[in-house]
Amino acid sequence: MPNVVIDGPRIEDVEVKRVLVKEITDALEKAYKIRREAYVVIIRENPPENVSVGGRLLVDRNKT
Amino acid sequence: MPNVVIDGPRIEDVEVKRVLVKEITDALEKAYKIRREAYVVIIRENPPENVSVGGRLLVDRNKT
Amino acid sequence: MPNVVIDGPRIEDVEVKRVLVKEITDALEKAYKIRREAYVVIIRENPPENVSVGGRLLVDRNKT
Amino acid sequence: MPNVVIDGPRIEDVEVKRVLVKEITDALEKAYKIRREAYVVIIRENPPENVSVGGRLLVDRNKT
Amino acid sequence: MPNVVIDGPRIEDVEVKRVLVKEITDALEKAYKIRREAYVVIIRENPPENVSVGGRLLVDRNKT
Amino acid sequence: MPNVVIDGPRIEDVEVKRVLVKEITDALEKAYKIRREAYVVIIRENPPENVSVGGRLLVDRNKT
Repeated sequence: MPNVVIDGPRIEDVEVKRVLVKEITDALEKAYKIRREAYVVIIRENPPENVSVGGRLLVDRNKT
Repeated sequence: MPNVVIDGPRIEDVEVKRVLVKEITDALEKAYKIRREAYVVIIRENPPENVSVGGRLLVDRNKT
Repeated sequence: MPNVVIDGPRIEDVEVKRVLVKEITDALEKAYKIRREAYVVIIRENPPENVSVGGRLLVDRNKT
Repeated sequence: MPNVVIDGPRIEDVEVKRVLVKEITDALEKAYKIRREAYVVIIRENPPENVSVGGRLLVDRNKT
Repeated sequence: MPNVVIDGPRIEDVEVKRVLVKEITDALEKAYKIRREAYVVIIRENPPENVSVGGRLLVDRNKT
Repeated sequence: MPNVVIDGPRIEDVEVKRVLVKEITDALEKAYKIRREAYVVIIRENPPENVSVGGRLLVDRNKT
């Protein structure tokens, strides 16, 4: 701890994940000033049929 | 925000998810009175070997 | 299970919470068709200095 | 409720999960003294490219 | 990681928490076989007006 | 969405929170390339008697 959980859509490119967790850990380190090994970041990738914004599934968003 | 996360078993039919997130968003809108686009609902579908009730995995429930 | 966690701002009125969890449970019951006692809903109330939207704390939103 | 969510790496063997949720439920029962059926434990298995410790993805850990 | 989050009612006695997190960590250690310092357990204590079971707030449970 | 939840110890200074959520949102924006208003970050502050590392509550850490 501190632990971070990110809920978002799928990220195709591992390099994007690599940069994301590094930058989030950098931000955590500035805020909490604990040894770096303590920070855990978990990325959750959610399929578009399992997420809604404003009551509408993401999978339905491109439909009229 | 407000954000809602639902942890349940698998839902086969997308139409069931569609109705579920709409009805939950309707309930949130009545409670929080924020613009509709702000509400995010995430459905998590959990395999029966990863959930236990009363100390017993769901996958073992049909066994004697 | 199914379990629901709602993350939102503070709700002052218990009656609002009462209606919210009832309506969400009604929606869950239609979707999952499990006995009613199985559904758990947890409301988390977050102080405005602990939530950001678009990179800005809610506590700072009314400031120019 | 009480509900427990475990975030960890993949567990290959269902028997390991079976023992884990039983022992956690035993511990919960001692602490909360509620009827056993009330305890729900959910195991989340996270792929090594979605978890970082100390700012580094687990998938990159074996690399120099 | 592995991380565990427990959502339950209030626990008055710190000694009960002490035993609970120790026993859960013992169970995790048997399952994941990772060094003991890696396991984080977080206890969340929820007020009875913020939790519902079966669509009814815990705070209303003792009422007829 | 994307949503981020941070579980850590208490942060006394609001300015530290302000910088933390801004930097995390900057990192998310680079990764997901969605409009900035979509990112929600929630900070959870946990008392030391509710968190354990390695099976030991943080509140007990300074004791021999």
